[in-house]
Amino acid sequence: MSRPTNRRVVLAARPAGTPTLANFRIEQAPVPALAEGELLLRTVYLSLDPYMRGRMNDGPSYASPVPLDGVMVGGTVSRVEESRNEGFAVGELVLAYAGWQEYAVSDGRGLSKIDASFPKSSYALGVLGMPGFTAYMGLLEIGAPQPGETVVVAAATGAVGAVVGQIAKIKGARAVGIAGGPEKCAAAVQEFGFDACLDHRSPDLKKQLAEACPKGIDVYFENVGGAVFDAVWPNLNVHARVPICGLIARYNADRLPEGPDRSPLLMLGMLAKRVRMQGFIVSDYNARMPEFLRDMSQWLREGRVKTREHIVKGLDNAPQALLGLLEGKNFGKLLIEL
Amino acid sequence: MSRPTNRRVVLAARPAGTPTLANFRIEQAPVPALAEGELLLRTVYLSLDPYMRGRMNDGPSYASPVPLDGVMVGGTVSRVEESRNEGFAVGELVLAYAGWQEYAVSDGRGLSKIDASFPKSSYALGVLGMPGFTAYMGLLEIGAPQPGETVVVAAATGAVGAVVGQIAKIKGARAVGIAGGPEKCAAAVQEFGFDACLDHRSPDLKKQLAEACPKGIDVYFENVGGAVFDAVWPNLNVHARVPICGLIARYNADRLPEGPDRSPLLMLGMLAKRVRMQGFIVSDYNARMPEFLRDMSQWLREGRVKTREHIVKGLDNAPQALLGLLEGKNFGKLLIEL
Repeated sequence: MSRPTNRRVVLAARPAGTPTLANFRIEQAPVPALAEGELLLRTVYLSLDPYMRGRMNDGPSYASPVPLDGVMVGGTVSRVEESRNEGFAVGELVLAYAGWQEYAVSDGRGLSKIDASFPKSSYALGVLGMPGFTAYMGLLEIGAPQPGETVVVAAATGAVGAVVGQIAKIKGARAVGIAGGPEKCAAAVQEFGFDACLDHRSPDLKKQLAEACPKGIDVYFENVGGAVFDAVWPNLNVHARVPICGLIARYNADRLPEGPDRSPLLMLGMLAKRVRMQGFIVSDYNARMPEFLRDMSQWLREGRVKTREHIVKGLDNAPQALLGLLEGKNFGKLLIEL
Repeated sequence: MSRPTNRRVVLAARPAGTPTLANFRIEQAPVPALAEGELLLRTVYLSLDPYMRGRMNDGPSYASPVPLDGVMVGGTVSRVEESRNEGFAVGELVLAYAGWQEYAVSDGRGLSKIDASFPKSSYALGVLGMPGFTAYMGLLEIGAPQPGETVVVAAATGAVGAVVGQIAKIKGARAVGIAGGPEKCAAAVQEFGFDACLDHRSPDLKKQLAEACPKGIDVYFENVGGAVFDAVWPNLNVHARVPICGLIARYNADRLPEGPDRSPLLMLGMLAKRVRMQGFIVSDYNARMPEFLRDMSQWLREGRVKTREHIVKGLDNAPQALLGLLEGKNFGKLLIEL
């Protein structure tokens, strides 16, 4: 039997500021034969997530960069095509980190079989996977909303933001979303149950936030940064908590903003209002995945958490889809279906 | 009996930037007669603390400003001179918030009698009072140093910093201080038991910190801000905690620093290293004062915590002493003895 050819997307050049299609290259390569203990994975879904922008940079962060000419990294739902590993049978679906490619060879480490009880296997990359887990841990562990408090989250219809808002409601808090455009804002309220959702393009976002949060903001789940953060900041209450999950508005910046250094103001404000800000990455909480899966599975069954997927077909469309994600063009959890 | 005259220091003008003696005015006023239930306090010690700079400003902070022509606020050890309140007898020493004046009339609310077991009554304003409690709560509750971790604190011979370092040692951490000049640095190591102490005037503080903290910095107790913070920041470890107690380097700034806005960098750094920063004021923890007093009294008895007082005589010298405090000229807990 002739080996299949592996189509893959590699990092062709590091972006200076906003990435373009020229930063990616599509390649073909033979799929190697399996050694004993290995298995061949075929990608079914590839997850696209904001953190990938960071991996395109060369420089210190919480994870090492994708090497030049290396395959772009990413979580996948993959099907076992061939197996020389007794732990995995052909046809099984696994959660893998196979990257932007059709095929990957694995020795089985780091794979987990997708629970047959999941409504859709792709949920393992979304509401029942890293984005849902991120929302769950960041909101509950760092944000710790109390009944009657107000939680604000941006990218409110995104993979993380939509879950943050819904968990906030489950915990008895008021949930106010921020999203790009009237269509997303309407969906945040009607589909995901936010109490209100504001358009981040409004010139008076700070004032609108004050109106939508009459008792101030107790938890701001930070996943965008930039102008949205600036509008939120003066509306924070004393003892507010700011879990910092991501700063998508800054990922493409190749230089610092102009204007005077406001970092002392940020710290003086944290002091005056006794604000807690804390960066986190969800993998630090991996030991608590079972607790998350138990809660989130139940909330999905009960209809208390809803999810929306934005599925793009074809690996070749992954670069354009990631560029769109960084500009907020997706509507729900962004996946590439191969 | 003729009433005594009350000598007091009032806020004559709000400072623009660094305060000067012209911001204060010394006044005399009659001491009013006592109504039923009141008592007359005579100030024995007045505590001078960095937060007082903030109270001289007009603007939102965690406490209301001193009004123009109002008596400067401050904690005191006071003696009951006259009493028409059955809860207090003449001659008793109380911890009060009587401000920068010789006499104050009180209805007894907010006063607490100074425990006769205290080695010195003035300790109620220092190591057994607000500064010691600040060090205790900020370090243990927010910083939460673990054995073998490294704690850094600036103003290492100050009322708060010296206690932070000594509690860090008690908890099994490495304590590295930062202070102004070789004399203070020597005292931090020899008197307070810091493992090392660096001069903040050194041009290569960042590099010296890296050498003094070979395993990085796990807790930075922030009480100064400015250039010291900038030197600490790149040396923080993943999962570092930064309790923000004060920002004395910024209190006198009447405008923002020049240069590009680094606040996004601060947040990106918090994300990359999963840093927790949290502003606090110790009064939020008042319910835990008994626990603090129990621990700190024991540590003092055992000689595990040492303290140093910087006593200036005469109320008229309080303005100059506060200006000196803001420039780091004190050496130990600064008190005015009346």
